[in-house]
Amino acid sequence: MSRRIKLVVEYDGTYFSGFQRQGKGERTVQQALESALTEVAGHCVSVTAAGRTDAGVHALGQVVHFDLSGRIPTERIATAVNGRLPRDVSISRASEAERDFHARFSAKKRTYLYLIWRAQQRSAYYGRYAWHVDGELDLSEMRGAAKVLGGVHDFAAFANAGGDPGRTTVRDLTRLDLRLLGSGKFLTIRTTANGFLRSMVRNLTGCLVDVGRRKLSVRDVERILESGSREENPSKTAPALGLCLWRVDY
Amino acid sequence: MSRRIKLVVEYDGTYFSGFQRQGKGERTVQQALESALTEVAGHCVSVTAAGRTDAGVHALGQVVHFDLSGRIPTERIATAVNGRLPRDVSISRASEAERDFHARFSAKKRTYLYLIWRAQQRSAYYGRYAWHVDGELDLSEMRGAAKVLGGVHDFAAFANAGGDPGRTTVRDLTRLDLRLLGSGKFLTIRTTANGFLRSMVRNLTGCLVDVGRRKLSVRDVERILESGSREENPSKTAPALGLCLWRVDY
Repeated sequence: MSRRIKLVVEYDGTYFSGFQRQGKGERTVQQALESALTEVAGHCVSVTAAGRTDAGVHALGQVVHFDLSGRIPTERIATAVNGRLPRDVSISRASEAERDFHARFSAKKRTYLYLIWRAQQRSAYYGRYAWHVDGELDLSEMRGAAKVLGGVHDFAAFANAGGDPGRTTVRDLTRLDLRLLGSGKFLTIRTTANGFLRSMVRNLTGCLVDVGRRKLSVRDVERILESGSREENPSKTAPALGLCLWRVDY
Repeated sequence: MSRRIKLVVEYDGTYFSGFQRQGKGERTVQQALESALTEVAGHCVSVTAAGRTDAGVHALGQVVHFDLSGRIPTERIATAVNGRLPRDVSISRASEAERDFHARFSAKKRTYLYLIWRAQQRSAYYGRYAWHVDGELDLSEMRGAAKVLGGVHDFAAFANAGGDPGRTTVRDLTRLDLRLLGSGKFLTIRTTANGFLRSMVRNLTGCLVDVGRRKLSVRDVERILESGSREENPSKTAPALGLCLWRVDY
């Protein structure tokens, strides 16, 4: 009898070529997890994740599932696997899930946090986890644009190529909050949706920063959203290093 | 005519063998700074720091001074040097100081922050900057011990070998605060003094954690402090990775 196990996984994405297994010598979170889990389980394990994060993206609350046939008690899995994982990936919780639980398809909401370091100089201490943006940002304009972007829309203009072709690009963005932290040195963009398109959070961030810099107006953002085309969106994709998969709700 | 320049420096200490230049192929913050500053200044630069942090210790507010003969305007130094420094060290501010300003001897107070990650499992995301301490910690006992340690004392029992021999080991600890952050997942120990002995903050932290685990009582801490001997102090030095030189006041 096998059990379906749900894991909450953290990683520092700096030295990973993303979550998904790729072969040809690329270092991925999936390969690291599967190799440690296979050792602990005593049989081959393959994992399925809630979100296939890109190269360089971090996670505090990635969720994966796998089927375990071995006898190890569920409450010992996290410690056993953490002892075998490299330092930049760890399991914060392991629990037994329903047989039909699916990390990706059962997920109701995903929340990402994008961290921006607002200072004249880059930060060696925080720079690993935050995008350095110099100069003034008009937060009130950015919040106006965030309001336009929230809700149910076709987000095709914010999706990079490489997603699942033919599938709907409509998503329900239930949250897009901007907050200042650390005496205004950090700007966080927290966003929740039923799902995200390829690089969508990084494209929303790039666009919001362009609004903050007054390169784009709120009206421009409306037009970009309505265009349904990435080519009509002049903003660059924000760098991966500022992005963190914060939590997945089921 | 040369100018005396004061720099506020950040670094992620993970891959540095401490601040101080050592030769024989060791990677140090001092060498990284001096080589970038020498390029920008157009003459050999050597720097003096407020605190010679150990291998693995981080800094958000290290201060160094050096003398600059080149013509580069002071307000351009940080950007020019940051462009030449490796990613894990950066300058957050550069300013012209009085001719007799000395990063080490003019310093009135130094503040360190020690970060503890309190959870059953280690954290891949925060683990670079925080010591993982599992199990219950009795915060009220820890705060009682912190009260005993605050003030003017001979801290020889909290100094590792290797400091300046023959010099006083009396320090004035004006602050030793314990605070919970992030729903209690983090415990921070913030400490300010006129100066610190070798590994003193890490030894204070190791001792406080032993009090939290009830291996030592507040009375034991009093006895350790009074003994004036590191050998009478049974606590281990807390790991370098949780420590950060937070700020230096002049």
